[in-house]
Amino acid sequence: MSLEGRFDVDDGVVRVGGDARQRYHDSRGYGYPLEGNEIALAPVEAAHLLYRGDLETVVNTASGDRLGFRAFIAREPGDDFGVRFLVYADLRSRGFYLSPASEPWVSDPPGGEADFAVFPRGKGPGDGEIAYALRIIGERTDIPAAELREGVLAVVDEESEITYFEVDSRDPTGTSDADASLPEGCAADLLADRVVVWEPPLGLYERTFYGQPLEGREYDEPTLQCSLLEAAYLAERGAIDLEPGTVRERGREVEGERFDRRLSVYTALRERGVVPKTGYKFGADFRTYADVESVENLGHSELLVRVHPADYVFEPRDLALDVRLAHGVRKTMVFALVADGAEGTNGIEWWSLERLTP
Amino acid sequence: MSLEGRFDVDDGVVRVGGDARQRYHDSRGYGYPLEGNEIALAPVEAAHLLYRGDLETVVNTASGDRLGFRAFIAREPGDDFGVRFLVYADLRSRGFYLSPASEPWVSDPPGGEADFAVFPRGKGPGDGEIAYALRIIGERTDIPAAELREGVLAVVDEESEITYFEVDSRDPTGTSDADASLPEGCAADLLADRVVVWEPPLGLYERTFYGQPLEGREYDEPTLQCSLLEAAYLAERGAIDLEPGTVRERGREVEGERFDRRLSVYTALRERGVVPKTGYKFGADFRTYADVESVENLGHSELLVRVHPADYVFEPRDLALDVRLAHGVRKTMVFALVADGAEGTNGIEWWSLERLTP
Repeated sequence: MSLEGRFDVDDGVVRVGGDARQRYHDSRGYGYPLEGNEIALAPVEAAHLLYRGDLETVVNTASGDRLGFRAFIAREPGDDFGVRFLVYADLRSRGFYLSPASEPWVSDPPGGEADFAVFPRGKGPGDGEIAYALRIIGERTDIPAAELREGVLAVVDEESEITYFEVDSRDPTGTSDADASLPEGCAADLLADRVVVWEPPLGLYERTFYGQPLEGREYDEPTLQCSLLEAAYLAERGAIDLEPGTVRERGREVEGERFDRRLSVYTALRERGVVPKTGYKFGADFRTYADVESVENLGHSELLVRVHPADYVFEPRDLALDVRLAHGVRKTMVFALVADGAEGTNGIEWWSLERLTP
Repeated sequence: MSLEGRFDVDDGVVRVGGDARQRYHDSRGYGYPLEGNEIALAPVEAAHLLYRGDLETVVNTASGDRLGFRAFIAREPGDDFGVRFLVYADLRSRGFYLSPASEPWVSDPPGGEADFAVFPRGKGPGDGEIAYALRIIGERTDIPAAELREGVLAVVDEESEITYFEVDSRDPTGTSDADASLPEGCAADLLADRVVVWEPPLGLYERTFYGQPLEGREYDEPTLQCSLLEAAYLAERGAIDLEPGTVRERGREVEGERFDRRLSVYTALRERGVVPKTGYKFGADFRTYADVESVENLGHSELLVRVHPADYVFEPRDLALDVRLAHGVRKTMVFALVADGAEGTNGIEWWSLERLTP
């Protein structure tokens, strides 16, 4: 026997009586209990029960209309009801229970912009355990960097496919030696947007992985081409005979204020024992190596790092592109968010995003 | 014995006498012949001979200075001499000969913004054959869409690594049937940014691949969710009972003028027998299927299509990201450039970019 719900526009929940508590809440994790056997359902929960045929109709208590699934979702005014319903139904079909991320559905709701609390497999709202906070957006909804939280982000594309991203804070660390063996005052020339370091000690490249040898001539100590970031870092430490200010000035000329943000992140990574090299071929700012002992025995780079200002606003399509590419080359995508006016390497937040199959 | 060149600032070439013609031009493809055995070298050619130690010095005829490699490249004022030299040296080291893309180096120079004419392997400037026109840019040099030409684009990143892209015009065509079996006036509801089509004939999804079934209920004729693009196309053809103008209006509300460009490209692809589905998971506008007979026997999608206005300006980093991702998933990246104010499907240019190893 199908039950009928009563939807009250004023408080926005659907009440169901009969044996609803046992049938929907206790055994299948829908809604929250009211007096007796009655329960209250969020519209997305009621829509799902209508969709499944478990609930026959919902009566609008104001108008007296009896609504089926089509009429019920057509009357939901929210722009994002459609995407929330799709994700709710998807996770349900994968065997997970989830509740709106607010009281009284859950007693200790996650903060931030979370839409749902997802329970561990086999658990429900009454078990007091939350696997993760879930935020849901459509592919056209921008997401400010400041709103990133640990948890899961579900993006629904224009054809209603869902991608899940696991969002984590991620402090890159490694054991690479950045500075111990730096030379002093190597001859260097500043070209338009790179620096040539003339025959520095071999270790500058071989051991600490600065620059890129100019090929085609055989030397024990190859001439290196360095990026302006590498050159600024090396000049700052006296390893090459260029004025640090001159190199930084050139960097700002060719890439504007982005250069300072990238230099902060480059420096922070080096100080954390991680070697950043250009991530250009992956469309990122850096690819990173956590444990460089020598370039000859270089392992696989682990992270792709993209640098943004802290007030950056992500477009889901760009996120999808970055995370997909990183996944395809077996690396983890990390976003380094640099606070405005941050001095040196403080004020950097690191977030990783990875694809997740729930 | 190394020779010495004479650099004349006024005409910008380096003259070399002695047996230079036989030694550098005839047997190794450098420069162009002058009177007797003398040849003229472009600065990049002279720099390469200096770099290799084949030319000992170049005398600046104005100042009388004798310049070695370091001094010679330091005096080259052009912003892009460094990147052109790197690519020139790279192709030389791969066994190719190449000349500046202008007379008198080559008699029939390629047009556009080409920097070099690259000869087929084993051929040189005297053989009257050009393999491709080569354009070289640094990773920070933007490239207007209007400047795309068939040929090869080399991008030098900040650490002096080179990526080669093969640029081709590419007209997508296929054998998929877009319209023959469309239903008439199916019931449909416009949600915030998608459309639900209620239980249309199975073929709409199964055969012509419109929409995405709502899962979780068992029906012979599943309810479909369609993107606004699919819905606009179907409404235009009377297949669903929504006003085409209403759907387009909603499309413009949620994604601005981009919606019209994408609808032009969507329609052009359908008319060419190609099925476009969302490319969101790849960060593109569409992935396309050239030969859909049924969704059950769907092959691999062949292209990723990104839509831009015709006056778009590419950043090399974004190009690298798109092409790399497409390559990683064994698809070809295609850019559809839509002329401003283009009506319908005219005025679309299609360009493919693929990674190339020379």
